[in-house]
Order: sequence, then C-alpha cells, then structure tokens
Amino acid sequence: MVEFVLSCIYICIVLSSKFAEGEVRRFISDCLVACGASKENAAAHAEVVVAADVRGHYSHGLQRLDLYVCELREGATDGCALPRVVREAASSALVDGNNGLGTVVGNFCMDLAIEKARNTGIACVCTKGSNHYGIAGWYAIRASKQGLIGMSFTNAFPGVLATRAKEAFVGTNPISMAAPGKKSDNFELDMATSVVASGKVELALLKKESIPLGWMVDEKGQMTSDPSSAATSGILLPLGGTEMQSGYKGTGLGMMVEILCGILSGKCSA
Amino acid sequence: MVEFVLSCIYICIVLSSKFAEGEVRRFISDCLVACGASKENAAAHAEVVVAADVRGHYSHGLQRLDLYVCELREGATDGCALPRVVREAASSALVDGNNGLGTVVGNFCMDLAIEKARNTGIACVCTKGSNHYGIAGWYAIRASKQGLIGMSFTNAFPGVLATRAKEAFVGTNPISMAAPGKKSDNFELDMATSVVASGKVELALLKKESIPLGWMVDEKGQMTSDPSSAATSGILLPLGGTEMQSGYKGTGLGMMVEILCGILSGKCSA
Repeated sequence: MVEFVLSCIYICIVLSSKFAEGEVRRFISDCLVACGASKENAAAHAEVVVAADVRGHYSHGLQRLDLYVCELREGATDGCALPRVVREAASSALVDGNNGLGTVVGNFCMDLAIEKARNTGIACVCTKGSNHYGIAGWYAIRASKQGLIGMSFTNAFPGVLATRAKEAFVGTNPISMAAPGKKSDNFELDMATSVVASGKVELALLKKESIPLGWMVDEKGQMTSDPSSAATSGILLPLGGTEMQSGYKGTGLGMMVEILCGILSGKCSA
Repeated sequence: MVEFVLSCIYICIVLSSKFAEGEVRRFISDCLVACGASKENAAAHAEVVVAADVRGHYSHGLQRLDLYVCELREGATDGCALPRVVREAASSALVDGNNGLGTVVGNFCMDLAIEKARNTGIACVCTKGSNHYGIAGWYAIRASKQGLIGMSFTNAFPGVLATRAKEAFVGTNPISMAAPGKKSDNFELDMATSVVASGKVELALLKKESIPLGWMVDEKGQMTSDPSSAATSGILLPLGGTEMQSGYKGTGLGMMVEILCGILSGKCSA
C-alpha cells in the first residue's frame, strides 16, 4: 500500500444496527486474540472491520473475518507484529509491515505520513510485508479528520482483466482520497479500479441474484451474468468495461496503483 | 493544475510525419509570436503542442492552435507572462501563473516539484492563474525522464455528467502518471476521467462518423450516437458510463482532480 497526505465519494449506506457496534468490535477482537493476535492489534483491526460495515462496504466487514482468522491460524499473518521504518527522508518513508495485520500497518503508515506532511507540505509512505488492510478509505479519512487531504492505495491479488488480455492482470487495486469540507460535508472517495469490487459479485452470489453484463467475463472470455463464475475462473472487467467504453483507462489506473504500491515497495502482485 | 513528483498507458500512435516536426513547431511558434507571445514562451508552447500530435493526442495538437491564437489576440492569455511562487514549504508550493500560457506555467511547476522532491522524497506544486496546458502527460513524463515518478492533473470547464445529474458537473479533468522502466519500457498514463476526451467526439464529427452509445447524452439526457450534440448541449459521460457500470467512479475521479487543482489553488471550475 502507499499513502499520501496532502489534505471519498463513498456511496455511504449506514447500517441500521441490529447489533451494537461495540459488541461486534468486541466479538471480532476476541476472535483475533484467540488466534494469537495481541489485544492492541486485534482492537485496532476490529475498528476498521466494523467501520467497513457501517459505511456499507459489506465486502470488507464481517464477511472478511473468516479470512483474517484463517491467516492468523495458519501463520500467514503475525497478529503480534509491529511495523518498522526501513528508511526515510523528510517527506517519505519505506515501512516493513513485518507480516503484521494490514490495519495495524496501515494506521502506522498514515500516522507517519501525517506527521511528515505537517512539516513539509506533503508526504508519502510506502510499505512492504503487510496484509489485507480493510477499506482503503479508512486511512484517507484518518488524514482528513486532521484537516489534511489523505490518499491511500493498495495492490491486490490479480483478478481483473486488462483490455485485450485473456488472463487476470492486476488486482482490484483501489484508489481513495478524502478531503475535509465545511460543516463535515466531506469528500470521501474509495473505489476499486475494476467495474465493481469482487465483494459485489460475492454478495450477488449469496443473494442468488444475477449480475449485470459488463461486470465479469467467464472462463471463455465471454460476458457473464452468473456470479458463480467468480468462484471458478471468472475475471472482473476494469473500470470502463469494454475497449469501446475505455476499459483501458481502468487498466491504466490499476497499473498506476500497482506501481505506487507493488513496484515502489518491491512487492508487485501482478 | 497540480503536479506531484514521486519517483503512462499511452495508446501511443506515432504520426507518419507528412510535415517535419521542427517545421510544425516553427509554424506554431511564429503564430503565437505574431499574437504577442514572447519567443521563449512561444517555443516552449509549440514543443508541447507538437508532442501531443506525435503521441496521437490529436485533440491537443494543432487542432488547439486556433484556441491559443484566439486567447492571445483577445488578451485572455498573456503570452509574455512568467509564473511566480506565491508561497512554499519544503515539499510544496503554490504558484501564480499570472495568466500565462499553460505550458510555460506547467513546465515551471513540474521543474519546481522535481527540485523539491529530490530533496525530500516527494513534492507537490499547485497553480492558479494558468491556461490550457496541452497534454497532462507531458509534465508527468518530464519527471519520468529524470528518473522520478511524475503525476499531473488539471481541472477543465464543466462538460461531463455526474451520475444521476442532468447538467455538466466537472470537466474532463485528466489524470496522468509516468514512471521510468527498464530499457525505456516506461509506464505512461494520460487519461480524461470522462469515458472519452471531448477531442474524440470532435474528430468523429470532422470525419462525419457516429460515436458509440455510452459516450454522450443529448440535451434530453438520452444516449446519443450523434457527435454534433457536442456542439450544442451534449454532455460526456464519466468513465464507467451508466450507474450500473459504475459511472459514479468516473464522477468521483473527476471530483478528486477538481479538489486537487481547483479547490487547492482556489480556482474551482465546477
């Protein structure tokens, strides 16, 4: 991931809470601690997961708890790890996440970027050795809450078609930016660079609904309205969709994020 | 405009030169000087205009000469003006373009951003009082040629529909990024945040061709394949197109650029 601080259009759906937020945070945190995470790291992680559901990003909320638990149990993520600065300049830094929880690493990086930006005008922090960090917007908003423009990007496992390609090329590589507005009328953008995030297809599958043509192609490269393709070899289209509708721009944006996150940190997913 | 330097997917079509590039540059430069521009400013501007045609961005090449000439003759642009720094920090600056040629201002800002980024790791320069600066990619590539990642954005006159809106909301507000690759296999992205740049519609009109459905809506808000709509009240769609295909993401990207350029500089076009 890489985070800029300078100073999101969330289509924001606030959940009518059937469960108290605090209770859900406690549940998530307890699960993570039971899998070996430290209390502090688990609490920080739970905060981001619940925020995703509250903002309507259901694909990045409780739905992802299974992933986090599995990765902790398998040792793929170190729930007690803390990030460290590998090298830095006045306005930039490279951070090693030490294979910790992505949210713990993300908060550390954004806080460091905020501190540097206050001194120099703008700062950028890039990280390697991190894991799934939840919603990108969380970190951009973290800066916005302090009166700055915040940006956050992350690369992801390849799952998006490039224009004229047959195989997945880059991940859903999101772009987020948040800027404080008057009377809390803030700008908050948090978007995958694919037509839709993979979570939207997963939700359609859970609801047994079809997906619109233009979101995904099947294993033969044909447009499909069947969300179950996602579980086999279906591939999301880049933002813009087909070449005629400028899908290559979504491909370009995905590559841009890959460079800022994967190449700059030395950890390219593509 | 705003330019970042950190360390493009041009669909690059190189013109088979029916005219020598140098001769076209001289012609453009002479036209601008005849309209009151200084020799140095005219030469710098001509370089960017020809580069647009050479890269296949015909909408930003010689086709725009008429605009530049008219603006100089009407006094809307000061062809002799030079930009100045209004205020600055270690990694950032606000520049007043003094109503000069956009390319002169753009080069000044990117060179300043490069100088600052070399000292601190990243820099951002924002400008007000500028004019049409040609292709955004020119400035990003200017940084890339020096081994850095360059980014450049500019806001533009409103001509793009926002999702669920009836009127043009933001401009085609481009995003560009360039990063140097091995053996000159560079990444160069330069894209409008609308489905297509307005120049593509203008070219279809010149060629008497129709445009694909999904690029533009007519004065009634209906999809149209008639490029002549552009001359009346046709409005481009944001990248993504319809709401079902996530056109709101293109809207969000356009707003992001508007904030970085218009709001930060105090000159919002929307």
